[in-house]
Amino acid sequence: MINSKYQAINFKEKFSKINEYWTPKILAQFDGYYIKAAKMKGEFVWHSHGDVDELFMVIAGTLTILFRDGEVKISAGESFIVPKGTEHKPVAHEEVCCILIEKAGTLNTGDQGGDKTVSNEEWI
Amino acid sequence: MINSKYQAINFKEKFSKINEYWTPKILAQFDGYYIKAAKMKGEFVWHSHGDVDELFMVIAGTLTILFRDGEVKISAGESFIVPKGTEHKPVAHEEVCCILIEKAGTLNTGDQGGDKTVSNEEWI
Repeated sequence: MINSKYQAINFKEKFSKINEYWTPKILAQFDGYYIKAAKMKGEFVWHSHGDVDELFMVIAGTLTILFRDGEVKISAGESFIVPKGTEHKPVAHEEVCCILIEKAGTLNTGDQGGDKTVSNEEWI
Repeated sequence: MINSKYQAINFKEKFSKINEYWTPKILAQFDGYYIKAAKMKGEFVWHSHGDVDELFMVIAGTLTILFRDGEVKISAGESFIVPKGTEHKPVAHEEVCCILIEKAGTLNTGDQGGDKTVSNEEWI
């Protein structure tokens, strides 16, 4: 029995539609959270999210996240949660395809703001 | 700079530690949610979760989820959210490695209960 309302989200297909860096796109919502897809390359800004944890899951490439007292490398097939209130700076030495899960309404630049802020994230 | 408190979660390594089916293990928590890993093979029971959405992300194999009015197939690299209150029955014709994200305290058998219920999920 086929019912088109039941359709899986294919990450590879979604990433093929993204042609900007550091611009998360919304794939789905569950409870009050969004699943987003972002391509990353180069350095993002230092920022923190005061009251929400942020889940990173890398699909392709290796993402480095710098902290004030250390760093983590997240490769394809790996995940990491940045705890709320923790200053961090994502760096992608090569192109990275990353899934983000965070509370709906979370800004990409957190409390920092600036010209990399995407305030109206699109669905794809 | 190395700080061992920043450590990515490697899904393949986590799944290598699981040798039971339909027994989700907790990998991490973010906000009030758990990321869990489960191996699945065969048929699970019909059940629903009254007040929480449930995110499935398949890492290996293909998971079928039956609904009363349709089904979805979720392959490696794909994701699907079962909406709250929706009766569903996961079926794995071959072994499936699946990541689940759901509110902490959500029971695997939802409102159905029965002998497949895992009430004290372990961390791995």
